Amino acid sequence: MSLLDYFRSKKHQNSAKLAKERLQIIVAHERSQRDTPDYLPQMQQDILAVIRKYVEIDLDQISVQLDQKGDNLSVLELNIMLPEHDDKDKAKPAAP
Amino acid sequence: MSLLDYFRSKKHQNSAKLAKERLQIIVAHERSQRDTPDYLPQMQQDILAVIRKYVEIDLDQISVQLDQKGDNLSVLELNIMLPEHDDKDKAKPAAP
Repeated sequence: MSLLDYFRSKKHQNSAKLAKERLQIIVAHERSQRDTPDYLPQMQQDILAVIRKYVEIDLDQISVQLDQKGDNLSVLELNIMLPEHDDKDKAKPAAP
Repeated sequence: MSLLDYFRSKKHQNSAKLAKERLQIIVAHERSQRDTPDYLPQMQQDILAVIRKYVEIDLDQISVQLDQKGDNLSVLELNIMLPEHDDKDKAKPAAP
């Protein structure tokens, strides 16, 4: 199954949102040793700050999932529904 | 197929790197209209800058893939092999 199928399978789960604009970020950290620090929880805020540089996002449109898979794999998944096209034009932050 | 299988399937492709520490970032931007700007190419540098806040990365250990899938789906994939545990301790940047 390719990555594209993975995203498409996610899309059909909430077909009502088909036409919406969406941003999905997945960060997987595979550690070679158990005592290696896991920095995904802090990285999450920094990644959201990066996205805000490019598009306005509502806090209630962000879903966050942080999973531990076995001893050495952490997966952070952010799903962000983006405002409709014209709302965005109105809500666009003033250019820095 | 779950996300975990997807990462595991990637891992077996380069089993020589099994014990290494790895970071994989995938950003998928699904646009509702074709004329919506695609900001993934610029976002790529910002995401790398975020990662450097947490771990030292060598430029030649980063593989970048940016794909257009049809009219409205862009997928950015960053695969980063992280330095071995002890190299990292030696190579740790001085605390800011």
